[in-house]
Amino acid sequence: MIESYVVVHNIAKRHNVGTLARSATAFGVSEMILIGRRDFNAFGSHGSTSHVNFRHFHSLTDARQFLKSKDCDICGVEITHDAVAVNQHPFKKSTAFLLGNEGTGLSAKECEICDFFVYIPQYGTGTASLNVTVAASIVLHHFGVWAGFSERTRDGNKFVVAERPVKQMKRNYCTETTDTIIEERKSRRENASNGFFDESGTEASSSNLLDAVFGHDE
Amino acid sequence: MIESYVVVHNIAKRHNVGTLARSATAFGVSEMILIGRRDFNAFGSHGSTSHVNFRHFHSLTDARQFLKSKDCDICGVEITHDAVAVNQHPFKKSTAFLLGNEGTGLSAKECEICDFFVYIPQYGTGTASLNVTVAASIVLHHFGVWAGFSERTRDGNKFVVAERPVKQMKRNYCTETTDTIIEERKSRRENASNGFFDESGTEASSSNLLDAVFGHDE
Repeated sequence: MIESYVVVHNIAKRHNVGTLARSATAFGVSEMILIGRRDFNAFGSHGSTSHVNFRHFHSLTDARQFLKSKDCDICGVEITHDAVAVNQHPFKKSTAFLLGNEGTGLSAKECEICDFFVYIPQYGTGTASLNVTVAASIVLHHFGVWAGFSERTRDGNKFVVAERPVKQMKRNYCTETTDTIIEERKSRRENASNGFFDESGTEASSSNLLDAVFGHDE
Repeated sequence: MIESYVVVHNIAKRHNVGTLARSATAFGVSEMILIGRRDFNAFGSHGSTSHVNFRHFHSLTDARQFLKSKDCDICGVEITHDAVAVNQHPFKKSTAFLLGNEGTGLSAKECEICDFFVYIPQYGTGTASLNVTVAASIVLHHFGVWAGFSERTRDGNKFVVAERPVKQMKRNYCTETTDTIIEERKSRRENASNGFFDESGTEASSSNLLDAVFGHDE
């Protein structure tokens, strides 16, 4: 079975995880994989009824290892010299899409774990930076078309939404062991300066985040 | 020459006009057409160097008349029974895309001015409401692919951005005459309750809006 994953590494704006999750849900993504600081575990309580599962890794290497165990290609969304326009559908099998941190694109380290790259063609002469959720949505849309995912049932002018989402099981998170706790504390120190899920932002509360995911007012 | 337009009628969240404009710029949209209350003229001062032009109409009928004078099809983005999946590119010529107000979709009146409809296929069983900018971006991307718009020049990993955008000329707005001022005041009263560009929101200042359009931090 063909699956898609969304991978984000040290995403700067917590709000963007919510809007990403909303699009991921709409386009049938199997899991969102977050790499870096682990404060998003706030999802653990509020997100118990999420439509999309979250998985966490401390490092890019760990995430790659997991995705390779799922026989997944890793596709960077970035304008590299060998990137293929996403509408050409250069896909072969299940694919995880690694998205750049907002504004800066993918780092050299992030590019290293990718098997290939796609970019979104732009036209005209204006601004070149697409919102991270917009970029992700266009790529996920194309992947769904390529993979032939079943379209959601339509009822009149609305798509039919599942009665109640699948329960987010604790096992979707990394199992806590002494090793992982030590690793996490180390990682947290290392990442302290990168602002991953910085709690100081005005949009940082978990309830706001979940509103962003499941609210219908945007 | 094939052109695209974005049309929004009484959009509820001012912030969304900014993010829409950002995507419109990236995908080579000729003009953004706003219908309804006219407070967005706050753009007039701050937006003097916008990459995308704005045009305003008081009514759906006026907007349709203008677009027809440009030999434009009007395409509603809505899940109607006869809507075609956007990736099937059911386009014929220059097209204006009418987007639903967030959350509610297109009204019967809005549907009336449309020549045809496209929808964005969704997969899985989760939430069905895409953010308005996400929906617009996917549609504009496909239109650009169909129309064969020239891709922006790439310089390394970035698209080349124009030196300085075209100056937003006052003539891009409706010319002020006594008639239009009267019409506007009437329309303003009629629309007072619909919250179009409600100034009370926290994100309503023009400077924030322009940050949203041209900022690179999202």
